[in-house]
Amino acid sequence: MMLDGRQVKVGILGATGTVGQRFISLLGSHPFFVVHALGASSRSAGKPYKTAVNWKLPVPIPPAARDIVVKECVPSEFAECAVVFSGLDADVAGDIETAFRAAELAVFSNAKNHRRDPDVPLIVPLVNPSHFAIIPHQRLLHSPPLHRGFIVTNANCATTGVVVPLAALERAFGPVDACFVTTMQAISGGGYPGVPSLDILDNVVPYISGEEEKLQWEMLKILGGLTRNEGVEPGAPPTPTFDMHASAPLRVSASCNRVPVLDGHTAVVSVRFKRRPPPSAQQCHEALAAYTADASELGCPSAPPHPIIVHDEPDRPQPRLDRDAQAGAGVNVGRVRECPVLDIKFIVLANNVCIGAATSSIINAEIAIAKGVVVV
Amino acid sequence: MMLDGRQVKVGILGATGTVGQRFISLLGSHPFFVVHALGASSRSAGKPYKTAVNWKLPVPIPPAARDIVVKECVPSEFAECAVVFSGLDADVAGDIETAFRAAELAVFSNAKNHRRDPDVPLIVPLVNPSHFAIIPHQRLLHSPPLHRGFIVTNANCATTGVVVPLAALERAFGPVDACFVTTMQAISGGGYPGVPSLDILDNVVPYISGEEEKLQWEMLKILGGLTRNEGVEPGAPPTPTFDMHASAPLRVSASCNRVPVLDGHTAVVSVRFKRRPPPSAQQCHEALAAYTADASELGCPSAPPHPIIVHDEPDRPQPRLDRDAQAGAGVNVGRVRECPVLDIKFIVLANNVCIGAATSSIINAEIAIAKGVVVV
Amino acid sequence: MMLDGRQVKVGILGATGTVGQRFISLLGSHPFFVVHALGASSRSAGKPYKTAVNWKLPVPIPPAARDIVVKECVPSEFAECAVVFSGLDADVAGDIETAFRAAELAVFSNAKNHRRDPDVPLIVPLVNPSHFAIIPHQRLLHSPPLHRGFIVTNANCATTGVVVPLAALERAFGPVDACFVTTMQAISGGGYPGVPSLDILDNVVPYISGEEEKLQWEMLKILGGLTRNEGVEPGAPPTPTFDMHASAPLRVSASCNRVPVLDGHTAVVSVRFKRRPPPSAQQCHEALAAYTADASELGCPSAPPHPIIVHDEPDRPQPRLDRDAQAGAGVNVGRVRECPVLDIKFIVLANNVCIGAATSSIINAEIAIAKGVVVV
Amino acid sequence: MMLDGRQVKVGILGATGTVGQRFISLLGSHPFFVVHALGASSRSAGKPYKTAVNWKLPVPIPPAARDIVVKECVPSEFAECAVVFSGLDADVAGDIETAFRAAELAVFSNAKNHRRDPDVPLIVPLVNPSHFAIIPHQRLLHSPPLHRGFIVTNANCATTGVVVPLAALERAFGPVDACFVTTMQAISGGGYPGVPSLDILDNVVPYISGEEEKLQWEMLKILGGLTRNEGVEPGAPPTPTFDMHASAPLRVSASCNRVPVLDGHTAVVSVRFKRRPPPSAQQCHEALAAYTADASELGCPSAPPHPIIVHDEPDRPQPRLDRDAQAGAGVNVGRVRECPVLDIKFIVLANNVCIGAATSSIINAEIAIAKGVVVV
Repeated sequence: MMLDGRQVKVGILGATGTVGQRFISLLGSHPFFVVHALGASSRSAGKPYKTAVNWKLPVPIPPAARDIVVKECVPSEFAECAVVFSGLDADVAGDIETAFRAAELAVFSNAKNHRRDPDVPLIVPLVNPSHFAIIPHQRLLHSPPLHRGFIVTNANCATTGVVVPLAALERAFGPVDACFVTTMQAISGGGYPGVPSLDILDNVVPYISGEEEKLQWEMLKILGGLTRNEGVEPGAPPTPTFDMHASAPLRVSASCNRVPVLDGHTAVVSVRFKRRPPPSAQQCHEALAAYTADASELGCPSAPPHPIIVHDEPDRPQPRLDRDAQAGAGVNVGRVRECPVLDIKFIVLANNVCIGAATSSIINAEIAIAKGVVVV
Repeated sequence: MMLDGRQVKVGILGATGTVGQRFISLLGSHPFFVVHALGASSRSAGKPYKTAVNWKLPVPIPPAARDIVVKECVPSEFAECAVVFSGLDADVAGDIETAFRAAELAVFSNAKNHRRDPDVPLIVPLVNPSHFAIIPHQRLLHSPPLHRGFIVTNANCATTGVVVPLAALERAFGPVDACFVTTMQAISGGGYPGVPSLDILDNVVPYISGEEEKLQWEMLKILGGLTRNEGVEPGAPPTPTFDMHASAPLRVSASCNRVPVLDGHTAVVSVRFKRRPPPSAQQCHEALAAYTADASELGCPSAPPHPIIVHDEPDRPQPRLDRDAQAGAGVNVGRVRECPVLDIKFIVLANNVCIGAATSSIINAEIAIAKGVVVV
Repeated sequence: MMLDGRQVKVGILGATGTVGQRFISLLGSHPFFVVHALGASSRSAGKPYKTAVNWKLPVPIPPAARDIVVKECVPSEFAECAVVFSGLDADVAGDIETAFRAAELAVFSNAKNHRRDPDVPLIVPLVNPSHFAIIPHQRLLHSPPLHRGFIVTNANCATTGVVVPLAALERAFGPVDACFVTTMQAISGGGYPGVPSLDILDNVVPYISGEEEKLQWEMLKILGGLTRNEGVEPGAPPTPTFDMHASAPLRVSASCNRVPVLDGHTAVVSVRFKRRPPPSAQQCHEALAAYTADASELGCPSAPPHPIIVHDEPDRPQPRLDRDAQAGAGVNVGRVRECPVLDIKFIVLANNVCIGAATSSIINAEIAIAKGVVVV
Repeated sequence: MMLDGRQVKVGILGATGTVGQRFISLLGSHPFFVVHALGASSRSAGKPYKTAVNWKLPVPIPPAARDIVVKECVPSEFAECAVVFSGLDADVAGDIETAFRAAELAVFSNAKNHRRDPDVPLIVPLVNPSHFAIIPHQRLLHSPPLHRGFIVTNANCATTGVVVPLAALERAFGPVDACFVTTMQAISGGGYPGVPSLDILDNVVPYISGEEEKLQWEMLKILGGLTRNEGVEPGAPPTPTFDMHASAPLRVSASCNRVPVLDGHTAVVSVRFKRRPPPSAQQCHEALAAYTADASELGCPSAPPHPIIVHDEPDRPQPRLDRDAQAGAGVNVGRVRECPVLDIKFIVLANNVCIGAATSSIINAEIAIAKGVVVV
C-alpha cells in the first residue's frame, strides 16, 4: 500500500452533479482517500449531502458521505484537503478552479475549462503521466509562485478511450500520422437531465456539439511530448512546452454520434503509421495486449490491472457487456484487423463515466501522490 | 402515367417474411402493379395470406392481399406474372430464383445469392440502371437462350444508402479513390425474429456477419461501369463485363455496427477524390442536392422526387425523424464538411426496409418496364 | 362535407411547443380549418414559424405554416379566428385562455388549468359531446354575458383512452361502479425536453406527478351526466351542473407508470358493473366493437371511423403497431376477458399525442361547428 | 458460517442456458457451494464450459467453471453432488429431474414442470420454507421410498416478487382475500434469444403466454398452508397436503406485460384484507419493512439482510436503479398507499434473474442444509 495506512483528505467540487456523484461513489471504498468536504452551489450549501443531492446511481450513497454538510465552492472550506476533485460544470469551473489553485490547493479537474491552458497538463492516467513534469513550471508562472497549488485536467470522455490504444501502438511502432475515429457515445456523457428521451429513443443523433473538435485537439496534446525550450533570457531555465505531436504531425478525423446506450462510449478507429511497412494486425494485437501503464507500476489502487483488454470474439467489445470490466478503469479493444484505406482498424470501448471521467481524476491524484507532486 | 391505366400482374416470393410483408404493403397502393400471386414455404402454402402471415407492420395488410391463397414457390404458379419480386431468405433464394428465370420469368430479387454472378446486374435504382444493358447477354448465356427471363438483384441495405451520394459525387467530380464507411444499422436489417432484444437494448454490437465484405465489394460493382470486351471468337459480339471500378481503383474500408434503432441505417462516410485539388465541401453539398436519377425522369411512380435530400441543420439526418421522408425511397445526407484525413465527410441515412430493400426492387421493375426490358 | 367548401380560420396558442407542433401538423391537411394565427412566447414572437420552432416531428412542417409570423398570445392578434386551439403550458394557460374567452373567442384547450372549472366542460369527443350544453350557462356567468366566447377543455391523455371503452360499456350495460386502471405511458406525454433519457432507458418509472389524481377525477366528470338544478332564485332558469357520476358512485383506482415507449399510452383496465349478474366478456366485446360516437355521425372529418377497434389476437393492441391506426384518432381495445376480482378486464391503447391531445381538441371544434356552438 | 469451512459439491443442469449461466456466476463466489459438475445437451457435452457456452453476462465466467468439461444430464455424472440445481428448459426438465430424484439426488429446480405436483413444494425462500416439511412424504411416495432424493421447485419470476410482500402483510394482518397484480416484466424473463428486439423496442407487449395463470395459481400454493389430512388407511400416518389458501379463499387477478427493460420485474399490486377494518397504509408500510425471513435467521449466506426494502421516495422502486440492491436477493416495495377500490396498493420490484430465479434455488438449498433436509 502506497501510504502505509495513512489517509488523505479530499474535497469534491460539484458534488451533487453527475460527475460529483460518481466521485463520491468511487471514493466510498477507496483505500486511502477520505471524503472530507463537499462543495456545490449556494442552493445546496448548508444541507446534508443526502438531502441536497438527487442521487441517480444504482448503488446507495456511501454512508460516509450521506451526512456531510455541503459547502459553497470557496477555497477556505477546503483548506484541509490535500486533493480537490472537480466535477463542476463548465460554466463555473474555470474561475473556481483558478481560485482553488491560487489558494495552494491541488485541483484534479474533469471540466474542460483549463484543458487548453499552455501550462496545465491534460493527463489520461494510462497514457501520459509524464506530463506532470510541467507542474513546477505552472507554479512558477503564478505570481507569487505557488508551492503546492496546481491544476491537472483529464480528457474528454470520448478522447480518453481512443488515446489509450493509440499510445500503445505508438510506443510499439512509432508515430501514427493519420487517424479516423467514429464514436457511438452513451447518453450519460450528456449529464443530467442531459439528452431528452424523445431525442434518442429509437434514434441516433449524428452530432455532439464541440465534441469532434475536442477529440481532434486533445489527442494531440495527450499523445505529444513535453519539450524543453531554452529560456528566453540567457541563463534562464528551459521552459517546458507541449509539442502537440509536432515532431510527427498527426491528422485526426473525428465523427461523433449519440446512441441509445446508458454508459460506455464505443469508437471505430483506423490508423496509419508513419513507419513503412506498417506493423501487421497480429503485431498490433500483441502490442495492445502487452501495453502497461505507469499507474499500475506505481501501485495506484484505482489503476486497472490491464490498461487494455483485447477481445478475440468477433463481436466484442460491447458497451453493456464490457463497460464494467475492471470497474470501468481500463479500455477494451476488439476486432484488430487490416484497414483497406489506412493500415489497421479496431473497436474501442471505454466507460465514459469511469475511466472517461471520475476514475481518471482519481488515478491522476494517486499518481501525483506516488510521484510526490502532492505531498501527504 | 407510364401505362395509361393498364395493370401489371406481379408475384411475390417469400411473401410471409419480413421483406415480403414490406413488398405487399408497398404494392397495396401501387398505381399499376397488382399483386397476383404469393409464394412461401410449403408450411404456408394453401392458406389465405392473412392466416399464413405473422404480420408485423404498423399498418394493416392491404385488403387486396388478405385473401390471396399462398402458393409454393414454383414457377408454374407464377406463370401469369410479368414481374416476380423475391424476398426469399438466402438459404433458398439461389435455386428458386434460377428456376424462375429458366421459366422465362423476370425476377427482381432482394436476396444476396445472385449478386456476384458475372452476368447478373446489381442495381441500385437511383444509381446504375444502365446496368440493365447486360440483360440480353444474361439471356444469351442460358441454354437455350431466354427470351424474357432474367434476374436483377438490388444491393445490401447498407450499401444502398452509401452508393447514392457516392454516385452523385463521382458524376460531378470524377472518381473517388478511397472511402471510409462506418455504419450504425437498424435492427430491422436482421429480419424477424432477428436480433434478440437481450443483445441490443442499452447496447451496440460492433459486428454484423459478412456485412463489411458485402459493402466493400458491392460498391465496386454498382459504381463501376459496364465494359464491352471483344468476343473471344473472331466476329462474335462483344461481351459486356462489370469493370468493378477498375479504371480508377477504389479502396473501401467499412465498419458495420448494430444499434438499437428500429428502421434506418445511418452511415458516417469520408471520401477522397482522385481529382486534385478536390472539390470543396460547398461544391459537394451542391452536387449532392442537384443529383438526379433516371428513375424519376423515366416517370417511375415509386422513385423519390429527390434522390438525395441534403440537410443543413447540424444534427440531421436522424433515423427516427428522417427515415420516412419521401416514403423512405430517397437518401438523406447531412453534415457535408471537410475531412482532416481524406477530403470530404458527411452523414448518410437511408431507410433500410424501403430504398434499402423492397422499394429498390419495385423501382427496378418500374425502370425495366420503362426501358422495355420487361414487356407488358 | 360539413361546410360546403367554406374555410374556417383557426389560431394556435403555444404553437412552438410539443402539442402546438402536433396541432399544426394535423391541421396541415384539414378539409376546412386553415391555420391563420400562431401564438407563442415573446421570445418567438416576430419570427417566421419555421425559424421560431425547434420542429420535432418526423414529418415536415406543413408549407402553409412555415412562413406565418408568430405573434404573442394576446386576443387582438387572433380576432379573426373562429376557433382558437390552446397547446399552452399549464404555467401560463390559465390566464391567457381566460383572456381569450373574455375577448369572445372560442377556446379549445389541451391544458389542465380550466378542467375543474364548474362551468367548463371536459369533453372527450368520442364520449361526452353532450356536455357542450353547458356553454350557454358558461357564457351567462361572465360579466357582461358573452355571446361567442367560451372555453372547452379536453382530457388528460391517459384519461382519454380509458373513458372511451368505459362509456361504451356503460351505454350498453349501465353504470360501472369500480374500476382499476394501471397505465404504461409513453414519454411523449411528458412534453419536450420532458423525460430525461437517463431516467427511462432500460427502466420503468412507477410514478407520474399528479396523474393518478387527474385520471380518477376526470373520469367522473366525463362519464357523469349534466344535471339541471333548479335556479337559486325562484323563477330563475335551472342551472346545469356536472353530476360527477353521483347517481351511481364510481370508485377508480389508478396507478400510472412511465415506460420507454415514444407514443401511445397502454392501460390495463378492470371494471365492475352495478348490474348483477354482470355482462359476459363476449357481450362486452360486442358492445365495445359496436360503440358509435356522435362525432362520426355529425360528419366530423377528424373523427375515427371506429371509435373503438377491438383486437382478437391475444397480444394486441401494442403501442408501436396500433397507435397510428385511424391516424391515432380512435382507441384500441384487446384481451377482453373475465376478471377474477372485478367483472371484466381488458387492455386499452390510445395515441396520447393524437386522440389523447390535439386530435381531441380538433374534433371538439368540429363538433362545436356541427352543433352550432361555434357559428361560422 | 453454517458449515465451518466445509464445502458442498453442487451440479448444475442446463448449465449453458440463461438460468444456468446465472447459477454459475452466483456460485462463483459462494462460501461453501462448489461447482463440481455441469450438465447440458449432448451438443455441448464433452467440451470445456468456456467453449460450450455463449456467455451473455456482463461479468466474466468464474475461473473455477471455465474448464469444467460439460456432461450430459444423466444422474451418474452427478453422483458426487449433494445438491443439483436445475436451470433446464421446460421441454426437457420434467423427465430429467424425475430421473435425478429417483437416483437419490436433491434437485432444486427453476423449471415449471414439477411445480404443480401435489407432493413437490413450490418454495419462495423468503416466504414458505416451512413447505420443506412435505419432503419426507414426497420420498415415501416413491417406490421404493427414497432416502435422500427429492425435488424442490421455486416459483415463476413474476410470482416471486409479489408473494413476498403479500406474505409480510398476511403475517401481520391475517388473510388477504383479493389481489390485483399488473406486471411490467423484463425481457430477460423470456430467456435467450427470447424476445425479438423488433417486438419490444419502443413497445409494450400486453401478453405473456401462460404467465397470468401461473401467477394466479402459484400464489395460492405458496401462500397457503400445509395441512395434515388423516391417512386413508386407519392407523396410517397423516398425509400432508397443500391447502391452496383454502381456509381463506384468495382471488387473484393478474395482467402480465412485457416492457423494454433488461432485468427486474415491476408489479403494481392492490390487496383487500379479510379483516375489517383493514390496516392503514402506514401500518402496512411498517409491517413490510419489519418483515423477516427464516432464511436470514438460519444463517443462509445468500439470503438478503432485508427481505423487503421499503422505499419512501414517491418514484421508487425503479428497475434500473433498484434491481441490484442486496445482490438482487431481496424485494423492493414503494408507494404504499390506500386503494380507492380495494384496501392498499403498492409497487413491487424484484430482480427476475436473481431472487426470481437462480438466487431462489440457491437459498432454498442453503435452507435445506440448515434444516437437515440435505445432509452434508
